[in-house]
Amino acid sequence: MHWTTLRWVGDARTGTLQIIDQTLLPEQELMIDLSTVPQVWEAIKALRVRGAPAIGCAAAFGAVLGARSSAVFDVPNLRAALIKECDYLATSRPTAVNLFWALDRMKQAGNLWQGEDPAAFLEFLRTEAQAIRDEDDAMCHAIGRHGSALLGDNIGVLTHCNAGGLATSDFGTALAVIYAAHDAGKKVHVFADETRPLLQGARLTAWELSRRGVPVTVICDNMAAVVMREKKVQAVVVGADRIAANGDAANKIGTYGVALLAKAHSIPFYVAAPSSTFDLTLADGSGIPIEERAAEEITRGFGRLTVPVGVSVYNPAFDVTPAELITGLITEKGVISPVNRTNVKSLIGNDL
Amino acid sequence: MHWTTLRWVGDARTGTLQIIDQTLLPEQELMIDLSTVPQVWEAIKALRVRGAPAIGCAAAFGAVLGARSSAVFDVPNLRAALIKECDYLATSRPTAVNLFWALDRMKQAGNLWQGEDPAAFLEFLRTEAQAIRDEDDAMCHAIGRHGSALLGDNIGVLTHCNAGGLATSDFGTALAVIYAAHDAGKKVHVFADETRPLLQGARLTAWELSRRGVPVTVICDNMAAVVMREKKVQAVVVGADRIAANGDAANKIGTYGVALLAKAHSIPFYVAAPSSTFDLTLADGSGIPIEERAAEEITRGFGRLTVPVGVSVYNPAFDVTPAELITGLITEKGVISPVNRTNVKSLIGNDL
Repeated sequence: MHWTTLRWVGDARTGTLQIIDQTLLPEQELMIDLSTVPQVWEAIKALRVRGAPAIGCAAAFGAVLGARSSAVFDVPNLRAALIKECDYLATSRPTAVNLFWALDRMKQAGNLWQGEDPAAFLEFLRTEAQAIRDEDDAMCHAIGRHGSALLGDNIGVLTHCNAGGLATSDFGTALAVIYAAHDAGKKVHVFADETRPLLQGARLTAWELSRRGVPVTVICDNMAAVVMREKKVQAVVVGADRIAANGDAANKIGTYGVALLAKAHSIPFYVAAPSSTFDLTLADGSGIPIEERAAEEITRGFGRLTVPVGVSVYNPAFDVTPAELITGLITEKGVISPVNRTNVKSLIGNDL
Repeated sequence: MHWTTLRWVGDARTGTLQIIDQTLLPEQELMIDLSTVPQVWEAIKALRVRGAPAIGCAAAFGAVLGARSSAVFDVPNLRAALIKECDYLATSRPTAVNLFWALDRMKQAGNLWQGEDPAAFLEFLRTEAQAIRDEDDAMCHAIGRHGSALLGDNIGVLTHCNAGGLATSDFGTALAVIYAAHDAGKKVHVFADETRPLLQGARLTAWELSRRGVPVTVICDNMAAVVMREKKVQAVVVGADRIAANGDAANKIGTYGVALLAKAHSIPFYVAAPSSTFDLTLADGSGIPIEERAAEEITRGFGRLTVPVGVSVYNPAFDVTPAELITGLITEKGVISPVNRTNVKSLIGNDL
């Protein structure tokens, strides 16, 4: 059996959100209980739960905790607390659009509720959060089906950061493609960029791939070009944190560089993401806010001083890969290729 | 005043090779004494002294220690010990050709010596090693002069790994270009790739640039593409460990990727190296042996487990950048551009 990325345990009024603390992997596999909104906010901010779809799911359950934080136990007060705490949760991280998408959906659910029983209201919200989680899981499996059809047999696939089960409800986006191919009997060997500064590739992607029996080799980020040149990989698949209307895709810092290297070696470059990752209010990627994180992630990321005191660092957490470098966007609804405004709109646009 | 990368202290018969232990930087600045060949071999292998030209200088002084390891103190025995210990030192690392070049030169000097006084023989060898070190310093300054003419004012320069004073006798190769431009009053801001796995960019390049008053920002390797796209850098300058007759250049892993990214952003990409780094016996870069180093550099590089137990890693220490991606080779004799067999031969070929 494998791990649980996140789950609600108990009823809506007294239960908690449990997550595996991803900052401790691979050394420790520890499930932690989050029973207040500040705990959820901190867990998102500190990357205990991370990955755009998983952040959305965690925030949805966090919204239940937000509603029940009301001092007065009636629907109007619970609803007011829901709105207020959702707005607070939205300040935890700026780039992944799934966060805002899930919180908007929870607020909308709260506003649509007609009953007067506060316990039923909370249970309704919990059910909505669970639906977001379960729909995410279904989308991930659909992404896997669509994406695995693109991969040949006996193939090497390079991925960057972690767009796996740990980044979603359970099955992943980029790694769903690999899991589905693996489950279909294809021989797939993954090369995982370690992904500095926080090493999600080395710590998380390698961990979950080996848990699920998929062969994986970890490389430093700066080895991707040589791995491509040596023909060890025939495809690149990554996730995304936000995709604009023209197909420009924000993802973990380094993704844009990998896309350029893939192009230089004529290797197809795929981005796998559910429709909840699309932000059609943005014409292109230039409008996507890019989080800059603390210098210490680079200067003291491993408990040892690795940059001299007083030297400046630059630490953008994401970059934007332009649509023209993306061979295909793998979504739960199918594959968008070539990647352009028209094709994004026709597959994704009608729902949003 | 700045640091000393390496120096001989004392006379040939009782003196020692002192080096700054680069594995401890930037946390500790410690000079260590090497008085036996196994100590020099270990210091090269463990990267206490590293960088192609500095390895050559250290090995040359190590050859003096090799000669004096003879149990019998006469010239024939010292000469035999010199040859034997030079051959042993040559097994410390495979890629940097300066190591073999310096050891060959020391053996040749030992063979040419005509006298019978063993103390004078040792002093002669020490003088030859010092000449290798001093010639390296002169070459580095000439590289700086030729290279700085290529840089404009108010410029950002990206470099990878450490091709600075710590990698040479004192002034650097890639960083000599930057130091010379800085000394000439040009405003240069350096972006230093941290350079996983051993972080020579973060630990060493940032340290020596700030020691010499040059502004520097450290980035993770996977941020180079975004720094280029954001027009923060207008040139890339790196060093080399071995350059083939056609201009293909081996350098720290990741250099090839940086060269591809520079090309994609139309940024000139320069390789700075002395003529002792050229290996004209190799027609092209495919013949350059690439060292693979221990998995632990990636899995436990900072004392913390960052890759799950049992997961494989790939850890080539160098890659080869093809000549066609190199805008110019900056040598002590001038700049080779365009980089091709004919131009390499006409500038470098006659001496070797």
